[in-house]
Amino acid sequence: MSKIWTGRISKSTDKAVEEFTSSISIDKKLYLYDITGTAAHVIGLNKIGILSDDELKKIIAGLEKVKKKIELKEVRDVDNYEDIHSLVENELAIAIGKTAEKIHTGRSRNDQAVLDEKLFLKDALAGIISKIIFLQKNLIELAGKKINLAMPAYTHLQKAQPVLLSHYLLSFFEKFKRDINKFYEVFELNDCLPLGAAACTGSGYRIDRKFLKETLKFKYSDSNSMDIVASRDSLLDFIYCCSLVMIHLSRFCEDFIIYSSSEFSYIDIDETFCTGSSIMPQKKNPDILELIRGKSSIIIGNLMQIMVLIKGLPTTYNRDLQEDKKILFNAYEETYNSIEIFSKLLKKIKFNPNVIENSLKEGFLEATDIADYLVKKGESFRKSHNIVGRIVKYCIENDIQLKDLTLKELNKYSPYFGKDFYEKIELKSCINSKDVDCGTNKKQVIAKIESAKSVIKDWENKLEELCSRIPDFEELVRYNTVLK
Amino acid sequence: MSKIWTGRISKSTDKAVEEFTSSISIDKKLYLYDITGTAAHVIGLNKIGILSDDELKKIIAGLEKVKKKIELKEVRDVDNYEDIHSLVENELAIAIGKTAEKIHTGRSRNDQAVLDEKLFLKDALAGIISKIIFLQKNLIELAGKKINLAMPAYTHLQKAQPVLLSHYLLSFFEKFKRDINKFYEVFELNDCLPLGAAACTGSGYRIDRKFLKETLKFKYSDSNSMDIVASRDSLLDFIYCCSLVMIHLSRFCEDFIIYSSSEFSYIDIDETFCTGSSIMPQKKNPDILELIRGKSSIIIGNLMQIMVLIKGLPTTYNRDLQEDKKILFNAYEETYNSIEIFSKLLKKIKFNPNVIENSLKEGFLEATDIADYLVKKGESFRKSHNIVGRIVKYCIENDIQLKDLTLKELNKYSPYFGKDFYEKIELKSCINSKDVDCGTNKKQVIAKIESAKSVIKDWENKLEELCSRIPDFEELVRYNTVLK
Amino acid sequence: MSKIWTGRISKSTDKAVEEFTSSISIDKKLYLYDITGTAAHVIGLNKIGILSDDELKKIIAGLEKVKKKIELKEVRDVDNYEDIHSLVENELAIAIGKTAEKIHTGRSRNDQAVLDEKLFLKDALAGIISKIIFLQKNLIELAGKKINLAMPAYTHLQKAQPVLLSHYLLSFFEKFKRDINKFYEVFELNDCLPLGAAACTGSGYRIDRKFLKETLKFKYSDSNSMDIVASRDSLLDFIYCCSLVMIHLSRFCEDFIIYSSSEFSYIDIDETFCTGSSIMPQKKNPDILELIRGKSSIIIGNLMQIMVLIKGLPTTYNRDLQEDKKILFNAYEETYNSIEIFSKLLKKIKFNPNVIENSLKEGFLEATDIADYLVKKGESFRKSHNIVGRIVKYCIENDIQLKDLTLKELNKYSPYFGKDFYEKIELKSCINSKDVDCGTNKKQVIAKIESAKSVIKDWENKLEELCSRIPDFEELVRYNTVLK
Amino acid sequence: MSKIWTGRISKSTDKAVEEFTSSISIDKKLYLYDITGTAAHVIGLNKIGILSDDELKKIIAGLEKVKKKIELKEVRDVDNYEDIHSLVENELAIAIGKTAEKIHTGRSRNDQAVLDEKLFLKDALAGIISKIIFLQKNLIELAGKKINLAMPAYTHLQKAQPVLLSHYLLSFFEKFKRDINKFYEVFELNDCLPLGAAACTGSGYRIDRKFLKETLKFKYSDSNSMDIVASRDSLLDFIYCCSLVMIHLSRFCEDFIIYSSSEFSYIDIDETFCTGSSIMPQKKNPDILELIRGKSSIIIGNLMQIMVLIKGLPTTYNRDLQEDKKILFNAYEETYNSIEIFSKLLKKIKFNPNVIENSLKEGFLEATDIADYLVKKGESFRKSHNIVGRIVKYCIENDIQLKDLTLKELNKYSPYFGKDFYEKIELKSCINSKDVDCGTNKKQVIAKIESAKSVIKDWENKLEELCSRIPDFEELVRYNTVLK
Repeated sequence: MSKIWTGRISKSTDKAVEEFTSSISIDKKLYLYDITGTAAHVIGLNKIGILSDDELKKIIAGLEKVKKKIELKEVRDVDNYEDIHSLVENELAIAIGKTAEKIHTGRSRNDQAVLDEKLFLKDALAGIISKIIFLQKNLIELAGKKINLAMPAYTHLQKAQPVLLSHYLLSFFEKFKRDINKFYEVFELNDCLPLGAAACTGSGYRIDRKFLKETLKFKYSDSNSMDIVASRDSLLDFIYCCSLVMIHLSRFCEDFIIYSSSEFSYIDIDETFCTGSSIMPQKKNPDILELIRGKSSIIIGNLMQIMVLIKGLPTTYNRDLQEDKKILFNAYEETYNSIEIFSKLLKKIKFNPNVIENSLKEGFLEATDIADYLVKKGESFRKSHNIVGRIVKYCIENDIQLKDLTLKELNKYSPYFGKDFYEKIELKSCINSKDVDCGTNKKQVIAKIESAKSVIKDWENKLEELCSRIPDFEELVRYNTVLK
Repeated sequence: MSKIWTGRISKSTDKAVEEFTSSISIDKKLYLYDITGTAAHVIGLNKIGILSDDELKKIIAGLEKVKKKIELKEVRDVDNYEDIHSLVENELAIAIGKTAEKIHTGRSRNDQAVLDEKLFLKDALAGIISKIIFLQKNLIELAGKKINLAMPAYTHLQKAQPVLLSHYLLSFFEKFKRDINKFYEVFELNDCLPLGAAACTGSGYRIDRKFLKETLKFKYSDSNSMDIVASRDSLLDFIYCCSLVMIHLSRFCEDFIIYSSSEFSYIDIDETFCTGSSIMPQKKNPDILELIRGKSSIIIGNLMQIMVLIKGLPTTYNRDLQEDKKILFNAYEETYNSIEIFSKLLKKIKFNPNVIENSLKEGFLEATDIADYLVKKGESFRKSHNIVGRIVKYCIENDIQLKDLTLKELNKYSPYFGKDFYEKIELKSCINSKDVDCGTNKKQVIAKIESAKSVIKDWENKLEELCSRIPDFEELVRYNTVLK
Repeated sequence: MSKIWTGRISKSTDKAVEEFTSSISIDKKLYLYDITGTAAHVIGLNKIGILSDDELKKIIAGLEKVKKKIELKEVRDVDNYEDIHSLVENELAIAIGKTAEKIHTGRSRNDQAVLDEKLFLKDALAGIISKIIFLQKNLIELAGKKINLAMPAYTHLQKAQPVLLSHYLLSFFEKFKRDINKFYEVFELNDCLPLGAAACTGSGYRIDRKFLKETLKFKYSDSNSMDIVASRDSLLDFIYCCSLVMIHLSRFCEDFIIYSSSEFSYIDIDETFCTGSSIMPQKKNPDILELIRGKSSIIIGNLMQIMVLIKGLPTTYNRDLQEDKKILFNAYEETYNSIEIFSKLLKKIKFNPNVIENSLKEGFLEATDIADYLVKKGESFRKSHNIVGRIVKYCIENDIQLKDLTLKELNKYSPYFGKDFYEKIELKSCINSKDVDCGTNKKQVIAKIESAKSVIKDWENKLEELCSRIPDFEELVRYNTVLK
Repeated sequence: MSKIWTGRISKSTDKAVEEFTSSISIDKKLYLYDITGTAAHVIGLNKIGILSDDELKKIIAGLEKVKKKIELKEVRDVDNYEDIHSLVENELAIAIGKTAEKIHTGRSRNDQAVLDEKLFLKDALAGIISKIIFLQKNLIELAGKKINLAMPAYTHLQKAQPVLLSHYLLSFFEKFKRDINKFYEVFELNDCLPLGAAACTGSGYRIDRKFLKETLKFKYSDSNSMDIVASRDSLLDFIYCCSLVMIHLSRFCEDFIIYSSSEFSYIDIDETFCTGSSIMPQKKNPDILELIRGKSSIIIGNLMQIMVLIKGLPTTYNRDLQEDKKILFNAYEETYNSIEIFSKLLKKIKFNPNVIENSLKEGFLEATDIADYLVKKGESFRKSHNIVGRIVKYCIENDIQLKDLTLKELNKYSPYFGKDFYEKIELKSCINSKDVDCGTNKKQVIAKIESAKSVIKDWENKLEELCSRIPDFEELVRYNTVLK
C-alpha cells in the first residue's frame, strides 16, 4: 500500500492492519472534490511563491490526467491505496513525477479531509434541496387538482372532522418547508473554508485564505484551526436534517399504507410502484412506502452513530472520525432516493372519491360543529360538548346518524336546536366553517396553494444561488491567469 | 379525576388507567404558560364577541386566582387531574363558577398543548442562550488572561505541535458559537402561533389569529391546522441543539479529565468542584466533568426518544405525543445545569504553567516546523517529511532532542540545514509561524479574542430582543382595554 | 450536605456543585437494598472479627430504626444528603453514635452501589416476570375462548390469508415467551455477589465472600474487582429486555389501534380504557395503546443512553455511571406499568365477530389455497401462482368473488379445476389446510394452547424459585446466630 | 428484472422502482444459505410426495450448477434480479428448465428469508465466538506472562491503588466471558426451524417439519407461523451482543490510547499497528485503537436501527424488514474484524515496566492500606479515612511521600501507628493484602488464570458442538437416500 507518512515508522504495516485502516473503498467517492481542492491549493501555493508557474502548470495538467484516469476506471489496484488523498498524490506522481511531492506543502490530511467533505456536502445539499422542491411541486399540483375532494381528518386514527384532501396534503408541504429551510441553513454553516488549519495548529505557510476562499467559492472562512480539524458540525446538521425529512416521509408513508389497506381503500398505489407476493397470487403490496418507512430508521440510526462517535472524543482529530464518511454517504443516498421515489409515486397515486366520501357519512364527524352551533346559540362550550356527547351516544345506541335526528329529539337535549341545524351540519358547512387562515375552509386552502407556489419560486432562485457557490474543477482551472 | 370530555363515554375510567394516562405530574410545570395562553385566548374570544366584557373580566380575575393558588401550592390533589389543562379549567370553575365552561370555545387541547410547549420553549431558549453567553464570556476572559501560555496540541491523544492555550480555548468558543446561533434559529422556528388549529381542521370560530399572535408576542403564525397539532419540529430542533452543546461540553470535559490526571497534571480542578472517595483517602476526583460527560449520553438519548416516537406516527395528533414533555423538560434542565456548572468550574480552573511548558520539551513537536524549514529552503514537502521522520527516529534511538543535533549531524540528512535552524525551532517561532487567520500565531489569536468580544455583544443584544418576544401574563392582562 | 469523604479535601463544595452531583433524589429508591446490603456486610464483618457481637447488635438495631424512619418519612432534609449510602450511614450515626463509623470497613461505595443495584434488579426482574406471566395467561385464556373466530391475516397491512384469531394471539405469546426466557437469563447473570471488590482492587480485609453470598442469597460470585466496579452488564441486559417487551407490546398496540379504527372495527376497546376529546364530543380514543406505543420509544432511548454512557468510559469506575440509576428506574417502571395496563385492557377487549367474518369475504384470501389446489392436481407452483393471479385480476375487473366463478370460467385458466374446488376454498378448508405444527389448523392451534398452559406453569415454578433467591432484611437478621 | 410474482399485477414496474426495491446487492451474500435451504426444502417435498425422485435429482443437480456458477462469478447481470431468492429460482430454470417452477411449493419468500438469515447467523455466531476465544487466549497468555508487573489502578482516571497488570487484563476477560456466553445463548435462540410458516398462516402442504429440522440441523422448531415471518429476535439479540463486545473493546481501546500517550507511556503499540501523519513527521498514532473505538458507535447505531425499524411495524411481515440485512451484515463484519485486529495488536503490545513502576511511587496509592492498617489496630474506618486524608494533605503540602513520614509525624495523627507501618505500605503488601477471591492478591490472580484456561477449553468444546449444528450443502445432499 502506498503511504505518505513513512520515515519515522520503519516497519511496514501488517496486511490485516492495512485493510482495517484503509478507507479507500468508501472515500473514493470524494475523488472529484479531492482533485478540485488540490487544484485550488496549488494555485494558492503558486500565488504565494511556493510553486513556480511551471510547476503549477505541470501539476494542474497532471491532476486533469488523474481525474480522467479515475473516471475511465483505469487506476490499477484502487483498493491498495490508504485513502483518496494518497491515491491522488501517488497517481499524480505517476503522471508527472517528483513535482507531485510538493502538493502537500502547507496542508495536512486533517484539513484536506474536511475540505473534501465540505465540497461533497455542497453538492449533496443542492441535490437534496432540488429533490424536495420536486416533491413540493408535486404536492402542490395534487392539492390544486383535488381541491373539491373532502376526506375525514384523523386523530388517534379515529375519524375526527371533515377536511379537504388538499388541506391534508398541505400539512406535509409545511413539514417539508421547514426541512428545506433547514437544509439552506446547513449550506450556510457548511460554506466555510477549512484550508489553512493544516494538522491542527494552522499552516506554517502564509497561505492566502481569502484567495482560497474565493477560488473554492466559499462564502465564509473558519476561524480556528483546532476546531476545524476536530469538528463535523455541518455534517451532523446535514444528517439531522436528513433524518427529519425521512421522519416526515415515514409519517406520510404510514398514512398511505393505512389508506391503501382494503378496509380504508382511500387510495390506489399505481401498480408500477407495488410488488406482489411469491406465494399469494392476489397480493399487491405497497412495498415502496414500507421501504421508505424502514429506511427512516436507518437514517435516524446514522444520526445516532455520528453523534455517539463524536461525543466520545477528546480534542482535535482522532482516527475515529474516519467512520464519518460511510455514515454521511449512506444518509445522503438513501434520503435522496427516498424523496425521489416518493415524489414519483405521489404523481401516480389514485384517490377513490366515492369511498372517501362515503366514509364521511359515518363516524359523527359533524359533532364538533354541532357543539359550536350550540355555543353560537348561547350555550357554554363545556356544556355543549357534553350535550353532543350524549346525543352521539343516543345515535350509536339507535344506529342512526346525526342528520337523521328530528328537531323534537334534538330539543330533548337542548332548546337551542333550531331548523338551521340541518344546514349547518352539511359537509360543506363543516369544512367551510373552519374559516381561519390555518383552517380547512376552501378559500383559505386555495390561498395557501397560491402562496406555496410563490414559496417554491423563491426556493428555486435560492437553489440557483447556492449552485453558483459550488466550485468546479474545469472552471477553477480555466480562470487562473497563470494557467491561461 | 376531573375530566373535560365526559358525555359520549359513560363508564368511568379505571383507576390504573387514570394513573397511566395522566400527565399532570409532568406537565404541571407548564401552568404559567397554560394560564397565559388561556388569558390571551379569552381576550381574543371577547374581541370577536364570544365572551362579553363582564365574562372576560371574571375569567381573567379567576385565572389570576388560580395562578396564585398554584404558586402558593394551595391546589388540592394536583395529581388527581388528568393534565394541566383540565387543572386550570377546573380550578377556574371552582373560582368563578359556570363562566369557566366557556373558555375552551374555539380551541382544543391539541393546539393548546402546542401553545404551552411553544411558550415554554421561548423561555427555555432564552435561558440556555444566556447560559452559553455566560460560558463564552468566561472562555474569552480566560483566553485573554492566558495569552502567553503555550501547550502541546494533540491529535490522536499524541503530542502534535505547540499551540497557545488561548488558541485551544478558542476552539471551543467556535463550537459553542455555532450552537448558540442554532438556538437563535430554533427561536425563530418556534416563534409561530399555533392557536386556531383546534383539534386538527381549524377553529370553528373566526378567531382573530393576527390579534392573538401580537398578544402572545409571536413573530409568525403557523399555516396548517393538521400540521400544527401533528408536529413537534421546534421541540426536536431544540433537543438536537441541546445534544450538540452537550457533545461539545463532553469533549471539553474529556480533555480536562485527561489533563487533570496526575500523568498530565496540566490543570487543577478547584476542590469545590471535586469530590472524594468513600474508601481511598487520597482521592480528589473530577466528578463534575464526568457527570457532564455522562449526561451528554442522556441528552443524545432524549433526541433519539423523540425522533423514534414521532417517526412511528400516522397523521396529526396521536397520544404517543404526550411523552414529549418528559423528554423536553429533562433535556432542558440537564443542559442548562451542565452549561452553568461547567462555566463556574472554568472560572476556577488552575493551569500549571511549569508542567505544561515542560511537556513541550519532549515529543518532537517542532518536527513539522523543520519539515516546513526544509521546504522553504527548496526541498519538496514529501521529501522533507521523510527526512525529518528519519531524524526523529535517530533522536529516539539516541535519546536526544531535535535541538541537541549538531549542524553536522543534520547535514547528513539534508544539505539545506543551516545555522538559522536553531532559531526556527524555538517554541515561539513554532507558534508564531502559524501566521494564518485560523492559526495559533499570537497576533492572530489576540485578534480573534477581540472579535469574539464583539460577537458576544451582538448575542446579548439579540437575546434582549428575543426576551421582548416572550409574553407575560401580567403585562398581557394590563394592556387589554376591556380589562383596564 | 453530609459527606463521607472529607479529610484530604479541605474546601467545602459549592452549593450548586452539591446539587449537581447529588443523586439522592434518584437513588433514595434504593434505601431498602442499601440497608439490607449493609446488614449482610456487618454480619460478615462480625464473622471475621472486625465487629464485636455487641457492635453488631447495636448496628442492626440501628439499621432497623433507620429503615422505619425512612418508611415513616421522618428523615429530615433527605435531599441534603449526597446519596443513599451517606444517608444511611449518617442516619445510623444519629441513631447509634460512633459505632456507625465502622460499617464502611472493607467496602467502598463503588461495590456497595453495584450491590444495591443488583438487589434492586432481583426485585425488578421478579416483578416484570410476574407481569409477563399475567399477560400470557390473559392471552391464552382469550385464545381459548375465541377458538372458533377466524380473521384475515395481514402482510404489508394487506389481507393475506384467513387465520384463526387464536393463532394470531398466540403469535404474541411466542414473542413474550422469548422475552420472559431472556429475563430469566438476566436474573442468572445478575445473581453474582459484587461485595469484596471495594474501590477497585479488592477489599483489604479477608471478608468471607462465600458467607456473604449465601447471606444475600446470591447464586454466584463475581470474579474480578476491577470488572465489578466498572461494569453494568446485567443492567444493560435488563434494559435491553425491557425494550424488547416494549417493542413487542408496541406492535400489538399498533395492530389494535388499526383494528379499532372505524374502517376496520374489528375490536372495541372498553370505554374504561379510552379517553375522549376536549373538543370533539363523538371521540373515543385508544389512548392507552398509543401511550404504550409511545413509551416504547422512551425505553429504546433508555437503552441507547446507558450504552452510549458506558461506551465512552475508560477502565473501572467513573462518575458518569451515576446516571445509570435514573435510566434503570425509568425503564423498569414504564415497562412494568405498560405490561400491566395492557394485560388489563386485553381482558376487556371486545371482538366484533360479524365485522371480522364479513371482512373475510372480500380480498381473495383463498387465492393461495387455489394455487395449492392446482399444485396438488399436478400443476407446478410457479405456474399455478400465475394462473390464480390472472383469475384474481379477472374477478377484480368483473367485481366478483372467487367462489362466484363457474367451473367453465375456471377451466379457461386451467383444466385442473374440478367440482371439489368450491369445497376447498371454503373458509374452514383454507384454515385447516395449514396443517403443520406452526400453522393455523384448528387442532394444531388447540394443541399449542394446551402446551402454552404447561409452559406457564413452569414459569410460575421458576419464578417461585427466583423469589427464594431475593434476600429479605428481616429474615436475614432473624437467622443470624449472634442476633438471636 | 426477473420477478416471481407476476400474474395479478399487469404493468411492469418502473426502473427506478426496481432499483429502489431490489435487495440483491445486499442479500447476494446469502446465496449459499438460500441454496442449502432450498435443497433441504425440495428433499422434504420429495419425502411427502410432491416431487418425484427424478425431479428431486434434477433440481439438486441444478442447484449444484447454480452454486458453482455463482462461485465462479458467471451469473450474468446479478444486479438485475430482485433478490437472492429469485436469482436462485431463475438460474435454476436456466439450468434445468420447467422443473424449477416447482421448488417454491409450500413455502414463501417470507419464511425462506428468515431461514436464510438463520443459517447465516449460525455461521456468523460460530465465527464471532471463535474470534472471542482467540482474544481470550491472548489475554490469558499475556496475563500469565506479566504476573509480576504492578501498575496503578484508576478510578475517575485518577490513580487509586496498586494492582497487578494481570488483574487488570483479567477484568476484560470477565467482560468478554459474559459476551461469549450470551453469543452461545443467541445460537440456541436462533436454532429454530422457520420453514413451514409460508407467507404467514402456515404451509398448505403437510411438509414434514421434523424431517426438515433434522436435515437442516436445527435443534428446535418455531411454533407459530405469524410470529415466524414477523420477528427478527435472534437477529436483534445478535446485534445487541455485537454492540456489547464493541463497547467492551472500546473501553479497552480507550485505556490503551491513554496508556500510549507520551504522558503515560505505559505501553508501546507495535509500529505495524500504527500509522503516521501526512504532515507531522514525528507522529506514531494508535489508529487501530481509535478505529475500533469509532466503530463501536456504528454498531450501537446498528442496534438502534433494527430496533426502531421493528418497533414501528404492525403484525407479521412488512417490507421495512428488508433493511435488516444491511444492518446485520455490517454489524457482523465490523465486529468480527475489530475483535480479530485487536487480538493481533494485543499479542504485540509492549509494556514499559520502568515507567509503570515509577508511576506507582507517586499519587499516594497506599492511602487505603493505611486506613485499613489503622482499622486493624482498632480505629473506626470512617475516622481512619479522615486521618489518612489529612496525612495525605500534609504530604502534598510538604511535597513528600507517605513512606517518608517519620513515626513521630505519624503519631501526631494517630497513636495507632507503629513500626510495622513501613512494611505494610510496601507495594507488595498493598497488592497482596487484597486477599479475596476477586482481589489483586497474586495467588488469587494466578488461580484465576488457571480457571480461565479451563473455561476456554469448555468454550472450544462447545464451539465444536455448535459447528456440528451448521448444515452443509454437500453433506446434506450426500446423505439423502434418493440422491445416492
